[in-house]
Amino acid sequence: MGHDLKALAELYKNALLNDVLPFWEKHSLDWQQGGYFTCLDREGKVYDTDKFIWLQNRQVWTFSMLCNQLEKRENWMKIASNGAKFLAQHGRDDDGNWYFALTREGQPLVQPYNIFSDCFAAMAFSQYALASNEEWAKNVATQAYNNVLRRKDNPKGKYNKTYPNTRLMKSLAVPMILANLTLEMEWLLSSETLENVLDLTVREVISDFLDQERGLMYENVAPDGSHIDSFEGRVINPGHGIEAMWFIMDIARRKNDSKTINKAVDVVLNILNYAWDSEYGGLYYFMDAEGHPPQQLEWDQKLWWVHLESLVALAMGYRLTGRKECWEWYEKMHDYAWSYFADAEYGEWFGYLNRRGEVLLNLKGGKWKGCFHVPRALYLCWQQFEALSSQKQ
Amino acid sequence: MGHDLKALAELYKNALLNDVLPFWEKHSLDWQQGGYFTCLDREGKVYDTDKFIWLQNRQVWTFSMLCNQLEKRENWMKIASNGAKFLAQHGRDDDGNWYFALTREGQPLVQPYNIFSDCFAAMAFSQYALASNEEWAKNVATQAYNNVLRRKDNPKGKYNKTYPNTRLMKSLAVPMILANLTLEMEWLLSSETLENVLDLTVREVISDFLDQERGLMYENVAPDGSHIDSFEGRVINPGHGIEAMWFIMDIARRKNDSKTINKAVDVVLNILNYAWDSEYGGLYYFMDAEGHPPQQLEWDQKLWWVHLESLVALAMGYRLTGRKECWEWYEKMHDYAWSYFADAEYGEWFGYLNRRGEVLLNLKGGKWKGCFHVPRALYLCWQQFEALSSQKQ
Repeated sequence: MGHDLKALAELYKNALLNDVLPFWEKHSLDWQQGGYFTCLDREGKVYDTDKFIWLQNRQVWTFSMLCNQLEKRENWMKIASNGAKFLAQHGRDDDGNWYFALTREGQPLVQPYNIFSDCFAAMAFSQYALASNEEWAKNVATQAYNNVLRRKDNPKGKYNKTYPNTRLMKSLAVPMILANLTLEMEWLLSSETLENVLDLTVREVISDFLDQERGLMYENVAPDGSHIDSFEGRVINPGHGIEAMWFIMDIARRKNDSKTINKAVDVVLNILNYAWDSEYGGLYYFMDAEGHPPQQLEWDQKLWWVHLESLVALAMGYRLTGRKECWEWYEKMHDYAWSYFADAEYGEWFGYLNRRGEVLLNLKGGKWKGCFHVPRALYLCWQQFEALSSQKQ
Repeated sequence: MGHDLKALAELYKNALLNDVLPFWEKHSLDWQQGGYFTCLDREGKVYDTDKFIWLQNRQVWTFSMLCNQLEKRENWMKIASNGAKFLAQHGRDDDGNWYFALTREGQPLVQPYNIFSDCFAAMAFSQYALASNEEWAKNVATQAYNNVLRRKDNPKGKYNKTYPNTRLMKSLAVPMILANLTLEMEWLLSSETLENVLDLTVREVISDFLDQERGLMYENVAPDGSHIDSFEGRVINPGHGIEAMWFIMDIARRKNDSKTINKAVDVVLNILNYAWDSEYGGLYYFMDAEGHPPQQLEWDQKLWWVHLESLVALAMGYRLTGRKECWEWYEKMHDYAWSYFADAEYGEWFGYLNRRGEVLLNLKGGKWKGCFHVPRALYLCWQQFEALSSQKQ
């Protein structure tokens, strides 16, 4: 393929600024009631007005992050603020826990049944506080972060359906998101908390969830990191494992810890080899580590975020290590992702393809896809190629 | 196609007695610990030993029902008893609510987070009590039935994640299963309870969940039966609606209520027209009533039970009304189901096909597919064609 690094940086920058952000700027704003519409069809038309807290917070994060990293555009601040104010007013219950879903008007629909809403709130309000310099936003961020720390050992609280003690199991999602979140909130945390949490979470991810022998990330393991022979214990979520690995690279980079960076790259490459669909291309969504039928019926589908996180991991891995395998895999993934997911006709990216790469759900946003993975990955890939092309000059 | 009714009765009888039951008799029995293995691969090899209460109870039901309806084979009683005793010992918490899952040994894994485990326990133990004439089994059945009545207005109890009162919604599954269950338990209930519950549930299904104008069954509606414009409120589950309609036919038949029977047949035919995949054949798993992208990623897959319930509804509808459209649709559904789902090589039926009818999960049993829908439908279709062929003689 022979990609030119400078052209790649341009491609990502252009897609972010002239395609993806305008799509959300144009179609997703609820100026009337506050917050965002995330259920957008292929052309951007709103087909459902419920407000899902993950996606509301993630859109606040995206526009605030761009204000902090690129430029403080008035329009971006206005968009971030439209979500942040709506969320600060309606997003939490009396104990300060973040709901899962609200009506368009902000009435609660679904209770705070896990801590991920709080994670995304912490990320969103940390970026928004930095961009807006508003003290109240800082407080919202800190409170959400403390919720996560407080609830992390029992993230579902009273909604946890697991019978106590029969089969103890912990999930990758918790340390993984805590690691990324803590790095995001660096400016708000004491350096002691920062280093402690990063150390602990990275160690937990690498020592407990990574199967060193197989080079695969497991979604759920026993508290001591051993495997559990059950549906949950056997499940591999390749996109999640790859995303976790670029979080690790990002953290290791701060200390020039090239050993950890190389290990993370090894795992990315190994997961890609394992999860690549040699018949139709793309990465499977779920697999069973023992080759049994997975319980997820959507296991063979190709999802936008899985492929975007892979592009980020490979571009970052290549930038940090220069390893040839990263580049080779990057080119393969680039060809697949840009041909199948990017919608040349109406803009933005498709979210859900079937195994053959045909569009399965004709939407740009829904209950789980919002203004987050696409712009974040485009931004990060742009930055990696920008850095690479200046290195090579 | 020109099916001969007698040959059809033979086909179903033979598939039930010489293919499907032997598959479960041979591969699913855990004689050591009690109960059944339901996670069986294509050939019948056990790939997971967890015991899911729905499926454990359903297998007790199947073998007990056959003892009651066909003949009291010693082997069938032994199989039913192996499950019933395991379940009576391990299946319930201290309050008598049925867990969702156990380990192979019977240790609880997943709490009683909804009432369907109790529904299937009531069905199972009612049939088992009738077959075994055991007083303790009768008590287990009655207790489970009372759990369902007690919990039916808040079926998820403390695990309910919906915020109270913002958007009141009720689900078809509850009255539908209660109707079928009550009919099953006729012999154990007072005639007053029987008639009351049947009247109420049938009326609720027909007046609230059936959209008279569109002729479609909705999965979730407001308490007054009106539609709710949300993902849950728009979802159509064609297989579920069709199954509900044969439950209604079965109940209406007791009173020779041909008006209700014909209405149920109309709805079946209408759902089939709506949900048939004109490109690849078969019925979709989920649809959005307004044509928006459904939230279920597996929406376009072809599931065994959807097609088997359709065969039952059409055979029953044809038997009870003689309507030509039932026969025409029966033939179409027969061709699809028998060509794509029945596994000529290793026996039993595949459970999960992709939209094109290719095998998606290479299993005969799992967390949701056990010894239930296939044998029940084969038995019921056999009975319908048996009755039809004697009528016609």
